[in-house]
Amino acid sequence: MARIRLGMVGGGRGAFIGEVHRIAARLDGQYALLAGALSSTLDGSRESGAALGLDPARCYGSFEAMAEDEAARENGIEAVAIVTPNHLHGAAAAAFLRRGIHVLCDKPLTATMAQAEALAQAVRQSDALFILTHNYTAYPMIRQAREMVARGDLGALRVVQVEYAQDWLAEESASKQAAWRTDPERSGLGGAVGDIGTHAHNLACFVSGQKVAALAADLQSFVPGRRVDDNGHVMLRFDGGARGMLWFSQVAVGCENGLQLRLYGETGGLEWRQEDPNRLWFTRFGQPKQLLTRGGAGAGEAANAVSRIPGGHPEGYLEGFANLYTEAAEVIRAAQEGRRSEALGLLPGLEEGLAGMRFIAACVESSFADSAWCQLEP
Amino acid sequence: MARIRLGMVGGGRGAFIGEVHRIAARLDGQYALLAGALSSTLDGSRESGAALGLDPARCYGSFEAMAEDEAARENGIEAVAIVTPNHLHGAAAAAFLRRGIHVLCDKPLTATMAQAEALAQAVRQSDALFILTHNYTAYPMIRQAREMVARGDLGALRVVQVEYAQDWLAEESASKQAAWRTDPERSGLGGAVGDIGTHAHNLACFVSGQKVAALAADLQSFVPGRRVDDNGHVMLRFDGGARGMLWFSQVAVGCENGLQLRLYGETGGLEWRQEDPNRLWFTRFGQPKQLLTRGGAGAGEAANAVSRIPGGHPEGYLEGFANLYTEAAEVIRAAQEGRRSEALGLLPGLEEGLAGMRFIAACVESSFADSAWCQLEP
Amino acid sequence: MARIRLGMVGGGRGAFIGEVHRIAARLDGQYALLAGALSSTLDGSRESGAALGLDPARCYGSFEAMAEDEAARENGIEAVAIVTPNHLHGAAAAAFLRRGIHVLCDKPLTATMAQAEALAQAVRQSDALFILTHNYTAYPMIRQAREMVARGDLGALRVVQVEYAQDWLAEESASKQAAWRTDPERSGLGGAVGDIGTHAHNLACFVSGQKVAALAADLQSFVPGRRVDDNGHVMLRFDGGARGMLWFSQVAVGCENGLQLRLYGETGGLEWRQEDPNRLWFTRFGQPKQLLTRGGAGAGEAANAVSRIPGGHPEGYLEGFANLYTEAAEVIRAAQEGRRSEALGLLPGLEEGLAGMRFIAACVESSFADSAWCQLEP
Amino acid sequence: MARIRLGMVGGGRGAFIGEVHRIAARLDGQYALLAGALSSTLDGSRESGAALGLDPARCYGSFEAMAEDEAARENGIEAVAIVTPNHLHGAAAAAFLRRGIHVLCDKPLTATMAQAEALAQAVRQSDALFILTHNYTAYPMIRQAREMVARGDLGALRVVQVEYAQDWLAEESASKQAAWRTDPERSGLGGAVGDIGTHAHNLACFVSGQKVAALAADLQSFVPGRRVDDNGHVMLRFDGGARGMLWFSQVAVGCENGLQLRLYGETGGLEWRQEDPNRLWFTRFGQPKQLLTRGGAGAGEAANAVSRIPGGHPEGYLEGFANLYTEAAEVIRAAQEGRRSEALGLLPGLEEGLAGMRFIAACVESSFADSAWCQLEP
Repeated sequence: MARIRLGMVGGGRGAFIGEVHRIAARLDGQYALLAGALSSTLDGSRESGAALGLDPARCYGSFEAMAEDEAARENGIEAVAIVTPNHLHGAAAAAFLRRGIHVLCDKPLTATMAQAEALAQAVRQSDALFILTHNYTAYPMIRQAREMVARGDLGALRVVQVEYAQDWLAEESASKQAAWRTDPERSGLGGAVGDIGTHAHNLACFVSGQKVAALAADLQSFVPGRRVDDNGHVMLRFDGGARGMLWFSQVAVGCENGLQLRLYGETGGLEWRQEDPNRLWFTRFGQPKQLLTRGGAGAGEAANAVSRIPGGHPEGYLEGFANLYTEAAEVIRAAQEGRRSEALGLLPGLEEGLAGMRFIAACVESSFADSAWCQLEP
Repeated sequence: MARIRLGMVGGGRGAFIGEVHRIAARLDGQYALLAGALSSTLDGSRESGAALGLDPARCYGSFEAMAEDEAARENGIEAVAIVTPNHLHGAAAAAFLRRGIHVLCDKPLTATMAQAEALAQAVRQSDALFILTHNYTAYPMIRQAREMVARGDLGALRVVQVEYAQDWLAEESASKQAAWRTDPERSGLGGAVGDIGTHAHNLACFVSGQKVAALAADLQSFVPGRRVDDNGHVMLRFDGGARGMLWFSQVAVGCENGLQLRLYGETGGLEWRQEDPNRLWFTRFGQPKQLLTRGGAGAGEAANAVSRIPGGHPEGYLEGFANLYTEAAEVIRAAQEGRRSEALGLLPGLEEGLAGMRFIAACVESSFADSAWCQLEP
Repeated sequence: MARIRLGMVGGGRGAFIGEVHRIAARLDGQYALLAGALSSTLDGSRESGAALGLDPARCYGSFEAMAEDEAARENGIEAVAIVTPNHLHGAAAAAFLRRGIHVLCDKPLTATMAQAEALAQAVRQSDALFILTHNYTAYPMIRQAREMVARGDLGALRVVQVEYAQDWLAEESASKQAAWRTDPERSGLGGAVGDIGTHAHNLACFVSGQKVAALAADLQSFVPGRRVDDNGHVMLRFDGGARGMLWFSQVAVGCENGLQLRLYGETGGLEWRQEDPNRLWFTRFGQPKQLLTRGGAGAGEAANAVSRIPGGHPEGYLEGFANLYTEAAEVIRAAQEGRRSEALGLLPGLEEGLAGMRFIAACVESSFADSAWCQLEP
Repeated sequence: MARIRLGMVGGGRGAFIGEVHRIAARLDGQYALLAGALSSTLDGSRESGAALGLDPARCYGSFEAMAEDEAARENGIEAVAIVTPNHLHGAAAAAFLRRGIHVLCDKPLTATMAQAEALAQAVRQSDALFILTHNYTAYPMIRQAREMVARGDLGALRVVQVEYAQDWLAEESASKQAAWRTDPERSGLGGAVGDIGTHAHNLACFVSGQKVAALAADLQSFVPGRRVDDNGHVMLRFDGGARGMLWFSQVAVGCENGLQLRLYGETGGLEWRQEDPNRLWFTRFGQPKQLLTRGGAGAGEAANAVSRIPGGHPEGYLEGFANLYTEAAEVIRAAQEGRRSEALGLLPGLEEGLAGMRFIAACVESSFADSAWCQLEP
């Protein structure tokens, strides 16, 4: 079982998410990173590549050069991770998809809807896989929650409360991470809504098994001079009848990565917090609360499938991210062998990406329209 | 320092909140309960009164009879607690106010806006005090939070998240408590919004020092056949510039009394949960989170003033409620002596009650208008 | 149902536990405080009594005068609360017991074993009741735990871990509270072991239903110049086969009132923390952890009997203390009416007090003997 | 920077800790696993090796064959991970050390003291490094705690409370993991004391900077028929003056991996729980508790050096384990280059292993001697 040959676009020095993708790819030993357009210059890319042990000949100054060259190589990369700022996702992904190279792309899908549509076309025209790394969906207890909702442990869902609160943009920041995220040219129309709101939206849909049919939003930019939103409140109506609320913030002082999901149905309730991801609270109406733990007695098949070590030894963010990579490896191998992998149904891809883009657009539109309800096309 | 002579309207057998008021009145030894119209019949009132050691001659079949008789007695009651269903608050309170008897009334103010206006007139025409028992405002760490916000520990407030989630009405319920709360004749137009939404609204305003200027609401009635709302989502705009969200639910399976308040300003954040009321989380931007505790090192003057025992020995709901009663006793004595008590500024009264009624009305109106923003008159 | 006429010895200005007893006596309306030897001087006693609304004629300068006078009065006190420093418990209690006045005495029983034996004799020779306020036993979830252990929900107990950690004596302190507690003349041979170690010991026995048969202890005095222990480690062997550990400390910086009890049996485990007293964790082996809450779905008869308000509205330390007073009222009334009250079996009294004294003595003895195991006579 | 060539002894199918070592070695990309004696038979080793992508020629049926063959190869392994049951650690490690191959060995050092002494000699006679994977020492917040203690943030330490509670051996178990751990031939004289008690001991020493000078222990075997201890209580005297308690249990129903460390000094206290490893509670006497988080504002140099991602995105057990491997890689490279690495001072090795063996022996000895204090030679 040879390792899948992987390349990376973006993720040079000072990047955050690129290193996360690399660890995720390494953790279960399913990939070998062999090529990269890690920076926007050839020198930068070679410098970053050297630190990763890449062959200088496979360090590129642009994703186009990389796509062309790798596709032509005998043992060129089979898959590529796209970890650039948002506005480059579409073009980069398309370059590889066009050449039959599988893509693992960071979220959100793109910076603009036009870019998203172009990428959608590229995905549809390619035989290669397109996977969007909505990593929080791969936490074991999130899989557990999804399984429980799907099999009716909560009854019909009524209320979905989701939030993602951070504080790192509470003041103006000069960091590289902050710079592109608060620049509409690179992040897209949405700021926090794209960066973290989409994660909250995606997670709520993934676990509830419902889509957001309509929303009413009120976005704010609290930090003076900021050109994108840094906080937002959204009321949600799901297509399966649930109602909900979504809050995202990058100015909530004291919050690190406060992604939290709560679901309440006719007969049961679930509560989960990303900062304590190995635990899932479950209550059947009229009974004591139960604490289900990763690897513990209450964990079922879906959770155990993405769990490595016994309960009480915490797995974290990187393991969750690695779960996506490892499932992607299985799906890629299945594709290579002409099989269809079961994991395919679990992995976020184009549809989730487009749903996220529509979510961003609808939030912005509703907010401009004084929070009027905005329907999301299915 | 003689005990204040207290009467009670409502609170007969099977009542919940009446017993809470009685414990609150007893806890610090400031009141003597001497009279009651505990039930709507004389027999019922005497039966309930006997269990409380009341003189049968001071057990009444109606609040009118009680008001008239007690006002005429030499040592008649000085204050009365109104703990009936909502639709009786107004008339009962007015009957006593008219006779110069101080009123401690459970929330919300009344069932309808018309009743509220009538009561407002009665309050304004009376020299007697009208106190509305928004008890959560009297938890020590809520007082601490208010003090910190007021002195600028958080900087200008940006975001206020408040919620109050319960699950006891997740199914149709036959209990006496449920019956009147889900009957619009007795509870008013709002169901959960009046019962617990008003608490959340009041608490957010009390601590933030800001009023809700506008709101957009989406209310639901999930339980089939229910005639009032049992869940609601509300987006908030405060008059001081903060934005927020309020969620209330009586169908959130697994939630007992999940009242939670979070405030985020330019330089700091605060988080508090009613189910763990002795703790208050405080973060200065860029510094480690601090856990302030009732009676502990971080507790200041406002908290200590309503605190009885050292940190680590939890005080709870009843102590919080008792704080209101004890402050009311001080205010009543001050009034009797022609002084003005400092505590008066802390106690919720008519203005808070009217604000709550407007909040209910605005939530219902906005929800009917497809969540259009509804301005609240100041 | 008239209130029980209550007196108090100790509890003047600056006292902590006296005020706690008074609140506990008031909370459920079962007592009227009518007399007191609140200070060791008549003037002091009258001054403190005035603040409590006591008749100056019933404020005494000594417990002997009070006992004699009240016993002779037509409507003299029926019960007395002893809230002095430890070395006065015995003589004060005996003075009232001798005259048929029921006693509620703070713990530990006395300062010395000789005092304890004298008191034991007084209790045995009296028809009056002697109740020792080991208040933590009256928390609802502690009653729940005891009920669960007794009915075998945990199987045979194996391990009992109990601890009580505070930090208020981490430095030398000049407070009145600290002064007598660190003075062997007034506190007894044990310092922290008597003040809080006895609580931990009592609680472990109360819930487990087992007695400590032997212990090995290592006591320390960390603060320079301190004449009594301020920290101690104790290994325990219970008469029912369980083994355990007890840790108490008054120098554990960051601990407020960290009393914690954990019990593990063949088939189940329980965990409880005094600082979060409305919750009890229960695990059946091989099943998810359950969170049982006061007033919640998992609470049984024993917990509900001492619970006032619905789940999610926290009851705290004062309510737990009040439970003892209210049960004592029931027991006193039963005694007056010649009935035997069921509550009698739950209330700590002489036996628990003597067990506590033997525990203190054994800890000190073992620690002096280089932690040799010390048998506790049954 | 080429990857370090790694081999593994043990860790075939059904093993737990072998897979953990492999993930730890992969996570930061510092090692390439190239050879293994994964099982005790050649066939088993090849089968397990195939699943890991190992060259069949480098899969061995015994560690001796592997050591000999790899040492002779041009590109033979530079380091080996020993992940067998305890009784094989010594001989396996020695075989590689003798040939200059660096060893990363799971804990405890060996099953018997004789084996330990033999291994000690092998380590001392070798130029190769010997690292013992006491992985909990490499959690970022444990490094933070150690740094804080060392620089005096707590003042002189007084009390150290450490515990490690599990429940997986609460009943007789037929699992492979349970089998060797409860067999004195393979686990050594100690059962739980060796398996997890040593972790607790090691962690307490690592963070406190003190050694256990003497202990008094009471070990138990609760499960009928069990030949080794499954629970134990130990009182500790540290050479730097601190006193403490250590509890370990594999029968504490409801505990998963409840390793918890608390340290209290003259001026401050620290509390940490392995199941929530990204958080460290710190209190300065008389000030509010602070919550220090991995990657957060309060994290210092020592924590940040072993931290990968921002605060609020939990790192867990595998990242902690990987920290040891990554530091070992740095130390190995330094050795190869004739440098001395700073990390060397942080990595547990022979001394810690011998201390652990002495701890096991002392616990068993003290327990047999009715818990008499047993001095540990320095």
